[in-house]
Amino acid sequence: MEIKNERLMNNLFSLAQIGRNSAGGIDRWFGSEKDIEAREWLLKYWKAVFPKARVVTDGIGNLWVKTTGLNDLAPIVLGSHHDAVPCGGKYDGALGVLMATEVMETLNENHITLRHPLYIISFTGEEPNPFNLSTLGSKVLAGRLTQKDLLKCFNRDNGESLEAAIDKAGGNIHCAGKIKQGEIAAFIECHIEQGHRLEDLNLSVASVTAITGIYREEITFFGEANHAGTTVIGDRKDAFLAACDFALQVEKELQKYPDGTLVGTIGHIEMKPNEVNIIPEELKFIIDIRTCRKEILKKMLQKMDNIQEIVQKHRGIRIRREIILNQPCIPMDQEVISAIDAGIAMVQEPPMRLESMAGHDAANMAGITKSGMIFVKSTGGKSHCKEEYTPPEDIKKAGDVMLHALMELDRKLDREEKATI
Amino acid sequence: MEIKNERLMNNLFSLAQIGRNSAGGIDRWFGSEKDIEAREWLLKYWKAVFPKARVVTDGIGNLWVKTTGLNDLAPIVLGSHHDAVPCGGKYDGALGVLMATEVMETLNENHITLRHPLYIISFTGEEPNPFNLSTLGSKVLAGRLTQKDLLKCFNRDNGESLEAAIDKAGGNIHCAGKIKQGEIAAFIECHIEQGHRLEDLNLSVASVTAITGIYREEITFFGEANHAGTTVIGDRKDAFLAACDFALQVEKELQKYPDGTLVGTIGHIEMKPNEVNIIPEELKFIIDIRTCRKEILKKMLQKMDNIQEIVQKHRGIRIRREIILNQPCIPMDQEVISAIDAGIAMVQEPPMRLESMAGHDAANMAGITKSGMIFVKSTGGKSHCKEEYTPPEDIKKAGDVMLHALMELDRKLDREEKATI
Repeated sequence: MEIKNERLMNNLFSLAQIGRNSAGGIDRWFGSEKDIEAREWLLKYWKAVFPKARVVTDGIGNLWVKTTGLNDLAPIVLGSHHDAVPCGGKYDGALGVLMATEVMETLNENHITLRHPLYIISFTGEEPNPFNLSTLGSKVLAGRLTQKDLLKCFNRDNGESLEAAIDKAGGNIHCAGKIKQGEIAAFIECHIEQGHRLEDLNLSVASVTAITGIYREEITFFGEANHAGTTVIGDRKDAFLAACDFALQVEKELQKYPDGTLVGTIGHIEMKPNEVNIIPEELKFIIDIRTCRKEILKKMLQKMDNIQEIVQKHRGIRIRREIILNQPCIPMDQEVISAIDAGIAMVQEPPMRLESMAGHDAANMAGITKSGMIFVKSTGGKSHCKEEYTPPEDIKKAGDVMLHALMELDRKLDREEKATI
Repeated sequence: MEIKNERLMNNLFSLAQIGRNSAGGIDRWFGSEKDIEAREWLLKYWKAVFPKARVVTDGIGNLWVKTTGLNDLAPIVLGSHHDAVPCGGKYDGALGVLMATEVMETLNENHITLRHPLYIISFTGEEPNPFNLSTLGSKVLAGRLTQKDLLKCFNRDNGESLEAAIDKAGGNIHCAGKIKQGEIAAFIECHIEQGHRLEDLNLSVASVTAITGIYREEITFFGEANHAGTTVIGDRKDAFLAACDFALQVEKELQKYPDGTLVGTIGHIEMKPNEVNIIPEELKFIIDIRTCRKEILKKMLQKMDNIQEIVQKHRGIRIRREIILNQPCIPMDQEVISAIDAGIAMVQEPPMRLESMAGHDAANMAGITKSGMIFVKSTGGKSHCKEEYTPPEDIKKAGDVMLHALMELDRKLDREEKATI
């Protein structure tokens, strides 16, 4: 049994039309009109191809396809997300949702009903968005965000409440809530690797063993506003230059991990007053540090303490550091990893296991169910950009891996349990 | 004869209430409601204390007080501007306008009518503003901006046309225009020094010999957007880190001019996509370089060419540099400088001449009339910030210098010319 890759590719390209901008990237962040349009596209498609399934939107706006199984068991869920970063690519998220869809279509065409009910999910707001909440949909399902938290969130660009945005997306924040342990039997997400380890090894797919820890600090440099013409260099306390100094010293430390065991990025900055003729008074940036190894993070943070001291002393500028995220590394479930390994063997690909250096909804799902991920090759490792690409033949292999991993899991899981119809 | 400093200080503090924000700074940029409020305050005050004068707003919204002289000569004009940078101080601009006002009040109280008509001006939009036009009012008077240019300008924050903003300010862009050479006999502006050279020398006032050249480049670093977790350090083309590298190398060059003969500032930056988990694709900043010496600027630009080459080569990142301003150094008029020197002598202060490292309306006015400036001490050299301060006793001295310099100019100028009443 194989998936129909042409159909999957067609769907991928159709969904990629939604939010496509003039530069060729995709603008489809949660809270945008294009996110809503993508939801409508998915719901319409699902209702057409799965007429017997229940197609529903949950409280937080996650989209579901729910089918029944032979036995009265908890469902196995496949899926990913349909939102994209600004000017993002067409594979990140969308591929996982459409591959899950393709797997369900393939099973239907082959008249196969699994022991477990099979569900598809497309999560709400996986990517960073104007509500400052990434992996929003899975965080709510995992109980990491409560209704109380959600009611305090507003769109930083236009002030819209999260409540209103969820309402527009077809959800209802007052019905959003946690899924209990045991309500889902397992979760599998297929995602592009977003690095080029598979490409370098000339492989198509891998099973993910763990999802990286993500540590973020907001670092603020307090300089002194002053006139750009009349302030001699020795009198300046330039917040921008202090930040540059800090950033380049951090870069030197990061260069000690060329294999990517530890990576760090300063992706967001804000400067005040940001006027051409005023020396920068305040610069705030967010540094994102990722590793699967606790001891490496600890070492890096010690280095950052040193750098802070040096820059403060050298430039007479106060630096405030605030931890805004400290998400530990999340291991994937051994049974799901093994099922994916089996799927990889079934399609006659070499075995491969990788750590994920990107965060995923699967990390949250791992808190409530047995979870695993399939990585598929990213050409050039490009991701979160319009150049994102995965060759169709690799997508085909990943789809077949998902199909077989699902069937393997369906066979092996809940064997002890008696159906209680 | 002396000015009444208490009245001047009172007026300074009254005007400083307009736009005062919760941090204690003043928000009164051109295009804001507070700019309009400051205009209304000035017009009301002037009409009250100068009932015989013509109080008018010109096409570009400059505010004028016009009085007649004994002879039919071109007027001597005193003034500065009433707008402020965001979160600016209470002295920059406002002091020059209110000192001119105080000098006129003093002359009136002493029943002195000059040979020349005496005018006061408060210029429109001297500071950088959302229309990207600084020294707007004086540029129009000097013919450096035409109606055609003006009709193409819009507020970058809210899209309002300059035409509408000028209309709100009481002007009419279709009546805005150049003043001809000879229509004004001379122009004197008093301004805070915005540096601490006077304070270091324990002096109150100086006569300005020249206004610095201002050279600005917009420099864009073209990196590559990519995923913050999955991209190993060796694969990154990080536009932010390239900009940091460039900025710190430029800083090293600037440190070779500790006396401030040359200064440079990166005050404005913009980053794309500016998302926490995406490697910066593009960083754009504006560098502002100031010096009164052409050859020093030339040398600095050669250094910047080298730095550009090094950073491009080292980081594989393209850098685009675009000159957005290249304003030459403007010398002040010898006769006006001498009159200010005479005024300084009259109040028994030591003689002092300085170059101005800040741009001023006087630089534009120098294109159409004999122009000069009085600098008054800035405590700590603070400027364009809420900490801006000048002690009242220094303001008193500067006011008396302006009064006497004006009377000296009035005596000396146009001596050859016959009154043609």
